[in-house]
Parts: sequence; structure tokens; C-alpha cells
Amino acid sequence: MADSRLDFLFCPRSLAVVGASPNPDKQGYRYASQLVSFRFRGNLYLVNPRGGDLFGCKVYRSLAEVPGEVDYVVSTIPASAVLGLIEECASKKVKVLQMYTAHLAETGQKEGKELQDQIVAAARAKGLRLLGPNCMGVYHPKVGLSFRYNFPRESGTAAFISQSAGHTAEVVHRAAARGVRFSKVVSYGNAADINETDLLVYLGEDDETRVIASYIEGVSDVPRFLEVLARATRAKPVIVLKVGRTEAGSRATTSHTGSLAGSHSLWQAALSQCGAVQVDSVEELIDLLVTFYFLPVARGATMGVIGAGGGGSILSADECESRGLRVPPLPADVVEEVKKLVGDEWVLVKNPVDTSVIFPAGWTHEELRRIFELIARNPLFDVLMADVGEWMPDIPEEIPRFHALLDTYLDVARTSGKPMAIIIRSGDYFEDWRWKLTMEGQARCTEAGFPVYPTIARAAQALSQFIRYHLRRSAEGQTL
Amino acid sequence: MADSRLDFLFCPRSLAVVGASPNPDKQGYRYASQLVSFRFRGNLYLVNPRGGDLFGCKVYRSLAEVPGEVDYVVSTIPASAVLGLIEECASKKVKVLQMYTAHLAETGQKEGKELQDQIVAAARAKGLRLLGPNCMGVYHPKVGLSFRYNFPRESGTAAFISQSAGHTAEVVHRAAARGVRFSKVVSYGNAADINETDLLVYLGEDDETRVIASYIEGVSDVPRFLEVLARATRAKPVIVLKVGRTEAGSRATTSHTGSLAGSHSLWQAALSQCGAVQVDSVEELIDLLVTFYFLPVARGATMGVIGAGGGGSILSADECESRGLRVPPLPADVVEEVKKLVGDEWVLVKNPVDTSVIFPAGWTHEELRRIFELIARNPLFDVLMADVGEWMPDIPEEIPRFHALLDTYLDVARTSGKPMAIIIRSGDYFEDWRWKLTMEGQARCTEAGFPVYPTIARAAQALSQFIRYHLRRSAEGQTL
Repeated sequence: MADSRLDFLFCPRSLAVVGASPNPDKQGYRYASQLVSFRFRGNLYLVNPRGGDLFGCKVYRSLAEVPGEVDYVVSTIPASAVLGLIEECASKKVKVLQMYTAHLAETGQKEGKELQDQIVAAARAKGLRLLGPNCMGVYHPKVGLSFRYNFPRESGTAAFISQSAGHTAEVVHRAAARGVRFSKVVSYGNAADINETDLLVYLGEDDETRVIASYIEGVSDVPRFLEVLARATRAKPVIVLKVGRTEAGSRATTSHTGSLAGSHSLWQAALSQCGAVQVDSVEELIDLLVTFYFLPVARGATMGVIGAGGGGSILSADECESRGLRVPPLPADVVEEVKKLVGDEWVLVKNPVDTSVIFPAGWTHEELRRIFELIARNPLFDVLMADVGEWMPDIPEEIPRFHALLDTYLDVARTSGKPMAIIIRSGDYFEDWRWKLTMEGQARCTEAGFPVYPTIARAAQALSQFIRYHLRRSAEGQTL
Repeated sequence: MADSRLDFLFCPRSLAVVGASPNPDKQGYRYASQLVSFRFRGNLYLVNPRGGDLFGCKVYRSLAEVPGEVDYVVSTIPASAVLGLIEECASKKVKVLQMYTAHLAETGQKEGKELQDQIVAAARAKGLRLLGPNCMGVYHPKVGLSFRYNFPRESGTAAFISQSAGHTAEVVHRAAARGVRFSKVVSYGNAADINETDLLVYLGEDDETRVIASYIEGVSDVPRFLEVLARATRAKPVIVLKVGRTEAGSRATTSHTGSLAGSHSLWQAALSQCGAVQVDSVEELIDLLVTFYFLPVARGATMGVIGAGGGGSILSADECESRGLRVPPLPADVVEEVKKLVGDEWVLVKNPVDTSVIFPAGWTHEELRRIFELIARNPLFDVLMADVGEWMPDIPEEIPRFHALLDTYLDVARTSGKPMAIIIRSGDYFEDWRWKLTMEGQARCTEAGFPVYPTIARAAQALSQFIRYHLRRSAEGQTL
């Protein structure tokens, strides 16, 4: 069972920013202005010994001056002042203290470690839960909690917990651009008190959350973590990016959050046994989040692929099969139907479908649609993959063709009810219309409920992990 | 020695498009209009039995009607008419016939294979070299030859040969957006006559070309190809994407260009022995092309890394070391200098440098620059890597900071003379200013002569291949 004080981490009735500042370069300014801009649903109090006004709010000179109880305190003050703050928190019945404050255990210096230990002990003695130190805190859009200006205002069903604040920014921004919205996101830094395990217990039981992603540098109680993880993965997919897999990486986790990375091969085996979806990079984590967010259950690993041109078709086949997915030839019943449709030219139609032969053969989008329908409907195929990338038009006049192709893919997949991954290569072009078209294409896919990927390899990698997860679940006799 | 007729493939004095069409949907229209738009430097002739005018040029009713000799003919007419065209070519002393014309061996049908064999035999009997069939042809910007509207008009020193036309479009567009310009690019399709080996001989000896990339589905004379490849890699880096590594991929090479892919493990061993730089995807091929295009020789595998935030630093360390690069702690002499610079706070400075500690510690870009300088100048470090990705500003007001960071990285690397890879994450955002800033950042890097990558993993992968190439060359006692 989750600690009920964590309810206050996500849904505080009142929140005080201690260290609120009128200087826009200071994090104490940013926290305050972000909470105002996100219309935080509880009472917001700003605290700074200098007093005054900020964003039309009174600035209290101390936490003690704040009227009434405070559930959640954000600290941006120096580490040396935190023990004093904890005393004040206790008299205000604060439930959670989130420390942006850093320069503690992660420095690797004796003084920093000792002070962090003292802070934790003092907080525990007062019944106060501590988030951080050295963290950005909580993004919970439903109640207007955020630590970045540009995170989406709307809620969704994805959760992300991370020891790195930079990664929370990257994951939320990038996944949001690909259609994902979040239930709860936590940057938890040094994990001195509230840690990955506490958060995993909470999010595993959280009805708002359907998929959990995590970025983990170190774990203090490994057996308990693995037990909690195994329980969470039975409830919903849990994606884990466990770093520190090399000597230099492991050294860097110590100086980042004071975490001990541990042996990577042992971690790999243990995570796999718990049913976690393991990834090696932030982009792979985002790809998996997007995949689980959008796709229905996969029943098997047999792929029907529409592979852009000839070269793209070959790469799709290679990228899928080298990851254990199957790209078989079209079955006899599909071939018979293709023959009825296009006569002698049936020889041009394969799996993957090379769409570059379609128009030179004199066929239209209608023939393409009917060919893809025959594949999508056939029970042999479990999962679809469509690559529109190489069709990126050469000149603006060809834009309608791009949209027509996308129409075909989206319509057919929607009707079939099967999971489909769509590949649209990145908009990193200097021409305004190309970038816009890329983003328009991506938006059309996500609005239609399909995940979109920037390369064939990333789509194949995400699908292979996604399918493996579902096959394992199904082998265990469980359904989502 | 290269066949001197291949000079006409790249530098024809005159070129005829047979099948030139006034219909913009036809490839015969596109070839003609692209050559006009690229200001092809030789005489351009358009041929179509219907005659008339197109783009202000007379359309001849047959090749025979064209006045004078023709070096290069592009055929967009049906396969069944090509044997007749070869007769006409012979009387016009045509040197090279490029067949966009397809529907031959790649259909897998007996008729197609036989007709392709007849075409090759007829061409050889007339002393005519054949490019294709089933290919887009040549992009040689210096003489105004192109098969896509939006390829760059300027020349460079990268060459690319590909059995896939789609990949040529993708590679040229994407590499161009990252600052690469091309000497010569060939889409060679079924390779019925002119093949990868002929082109590799030519480009290996070509003074305009400093790096060669290739996308290969199958090779007909493997021993000769390997001999030529080994020779070429002694002259310049040769990047090879050999596909058909799985059963489905290999089936797809057969239906794309009628190529036999062969055993992938044998290919891997053979390519490695020849000193080729092997890649598995188009994006990796582009990354390597960008890397070899921009970076000077790497002397070793020890990396000095500026790693954006804490999380980014750990991932940089993991991604580098898991690929055999070394990310050691800062050496004692650098640590001493850092102590002089920032006093007690020296504990915050590591390799990778976590730039997120810099500004909270009260330092400015000046301290950051001097820290990076100490690393860049130190003889321990062979190659630099800088990640600006997580600094992508949250609000437009933070744009100057992004540029200041980039200034620092570029200035320091330029002064040090060491190879540096820069990571700027993709511009796939819906906000106009974010996309523009990304592209501006990328352009600043490439204009300063540095390669830019969209992810840490891709930068580390490209650097590891690049460094391995140079270490091998240096072990062989060769210098570039």
C-alpha cells in the first residue's frame, strides 16, 4: 500500500515556495511563476525573508507567517538553511518537503553527505516526507502543479519518474509532441527519502496511470524494489531506463545523485525477470511510452508492412526480423485477391508492400488502399507498420499525395482494429513547408490514435519490445 | 583503372531524355524539368514521338532526329521498346544509356529476366554502358545533372552510390541539411551492367571525392568487389550499408533489384577485413558521412565530454564506454587548474562536465568556457563531445543562453583543433521558434565545420566507428 502522505505530493491543498524570488534567473522565481501560470488549484504561498509582492501575491517573510496549514513546501534555499526550515515545516503540519536545494550527498564530499543524512533524520522525526534533494519536483497537470512552463496543461494516462530533471523535461516535451499526455511526473533527484520504490508502489495503484516509465540511477533497497516492480508490471507496463551500465556512467551517477549504479548484467537479468520493459536511451524510453500509450494489445509477432519505396521495404524487413518479428510472404488467399484486383501485375505486390511500384504501374490510391486492406484484414497479420517517410514530397505541389497516403494508412488501420506503427521522418529541414508538413503528418497520426516514429529502426525496436511484453502477459494467462 | 566511358556517365557533353513528357506526373517530365532547372551544362535534347515543345526546347520525334552525337541517354520508355532504342543509341554513338525503365529482372518473372539479359547483351555488342535498369541515375551538381528538384546546387566531396532511389533522396536531403555537399551520387538500380564495383573503382580514383557511402543489396562478382573495396578504403573511407541480412530482407532485395543478398555473417566478416565502415541503417550511414565529412583525423579513443545536465552526462558516459570509447576522470593537472579557477567548488567539475551545476553555482559562461578549454587542450583527450540538447530553452527569452553555450563549445573546439561532435536534438516541435532555433543551432555548427547529431547514442555510435577507422589506419602505418 502506498504511503497516504504521497497523496499530498500530488494533490496538496496548499503549497509554499520557500525562496520565491523576483529575479527571473532564480529557480525560486520560476517555481512561483509556473504555478501561477498553471493556475495551481490549491492555496499558493510565496516565502522570502525580504517580503514584498510577486505576481500579485503577498510574499511572506517566513513559513511561520503563512496563515493556516501548508501541505507541500518547495525549498530553493541553500542547504545550510534546510534544517531550520524543517522545524518551521513541523509547526505548519507540512506533509511533503520538496528540495530543489542541492549540493548535498551528490557532491561526494563528507560534509554534504552528513548534512543530507541530518536533514533526512530531522524530517523523519517530524513525520515529514522529503522529495529530493537536488530535484525539480512534481508535474501533475490535473491540479496545476508543474516545474516547466511548456508542459501540456491537459492530463493523460502516462506516468514518468526520474532521478534526472533534464530527462523529465525531454521526455514530457518529446512525448507530448507525439501525442502523449501525463497523469503524474516526478523528478526525484537524490532519493534521500521518497524514492523510486515508493513512487512505483503509488503509481502502480494509481487509477489515473496506465503506463509507467522510469529513469533510475541507483536503488537503495534492491530486493524490495524488485518485488514492487514485479507487482507493478502485473498491473501495467513499466518501462525502465537503468543507467550507469559502464564504469564512467556509474561514476557519473554517483556525482549526479549520489547513487550506486551496481552491476549492469545483474540489473538486466533482474529487470527482465520482473517483466519490466528495459530501454537503453531516453529516445527509446519515449518510443515505448508512445507505443504503450496508443496501441491496443498485440496478439502475435507477424507483421504486415507497407514499406515506402523498395529500399525502405528491405530495411523494414531487416529491422523487424533482426529483432524477432516475422515478415512472411503474403499468404495465398491475399495473393488470390490481389490477382483479382490488378491482374498480371500481382507480382509487384509483396510483404512489405513497395509503394513506389504502385503509381508507375498506373494504379491509384484506391488500388493501394484495397491492397493494404487485404493485408490488414488477413488473420495472419498481428501488427501493421507503415512507412510514409520516403514519400516526403520533393516540391510543395506533391503535398496532397502525402496526405492521401496517410489517409489510406490511417483509414485501413482504424477499420482493421490492429495495432499500427507509422514512420514519418523528422522535420529537421530548413524549409518551413517541410517542417510544417512533417508536424502536420505526425499530428494527424496521433489524433487518429496511432504512434509515430522518426526512423524504421526505432519503430521496429519499440514494436518488438511492445509485442514481447504482450506475448509474455498472454503466456502468463493475464490480460490487460 | 576505371572505364573511361564512365566519364560520360558523370560529365556527358550532351544528354537526351527519351520519353520526355508534358505530363508533370510522368518521370519523363521530371527528368527534363529538373535538368532545365539545374542548368545542365551540356546540350540537352528532349525526345518523344509526339514532338512539339517543352520548357522552350524543341521535342524531337526520335533520337535519330537529334542533331549531332549524344553521350548520355535517359530512357523512361516501356521496357519492350528499349531494344529498339539501343539500335538508335548505337548510331548516335551514345556512351551511356540510363534506364529509369523498369519491370525487368526485379519482377522475378522469366520474361523480365530474359528481356533484361537481351538488353544487356545488345548494349554490350554496341559498346554502350548501361545504368540500371530500374534506377534514377546520376546527381553530379558540378555539371547540373540531377534527378530531384531539391538537391543542393553546390558541390562537395561526398559520394553516394545506391541501388535504392528512395535512399539517395533521403541521404542527399538529410546529409545536406547537416552540411554535407556531394561530388557524385548514383542510383544504379538492378546493376545489370554498371555496378557497385565499377562505381567504386571510379570514385576511389576520383579527386573530387573524399568519402564514399554505399547502399548495396547484392553483388554479382564478390571476390572482385572485395578487392576493389580494399583498395578504395586505403584511399578514403568507404561506408557500406549491406542489406538483406534477414530472410525477409533478402527476399525483398530480390524483388526490388533482382539482387541476391547472400549470407550476412560472411558479408560482415569480409567487409570488416576490407576496412569498410559498416552501418545498419540509413540514419547511421548519414551520421558516418557527416562525421567523415567534417572531422579531422582522430588520434585515439579518449573522450572529453560536456554532457548537458546530470542525466545527459551519465547517458553520454554510458553510450561512449559501451562502444569502446573511454571517458576517464579528469586528470590531476586539469583538476589543479579547475581548483585555481573555482576554488572549493572544483568538486562539481567532472568528465563529463555536468553543465547544469554551472549556473546554480554562480558561475558564468566565462567559467564554463575556461573549464572546457582546460579539457580540450589537455593531451589526454583525443576527441570532444558536446551535448546542448537538454538546454533547449523552455521559453523564447532563454534563446540567448542557447547561443552563448553554442558559442563556447564552437570557439573552444576550433581553438583546440580536436575533432568534436555536437548533439542538438531534433526540431520536431509544434512551436515555430523551437524548430527555427534547432535549425539555426545545427546550421551554426555545420558552418563552423562540426558535425551535429540528433541523439547521444547516434553521436557515440558514429564517433566509435570513425575513431576505429582512424586507429586501424594508423596501426597500418597509413595516414590520410
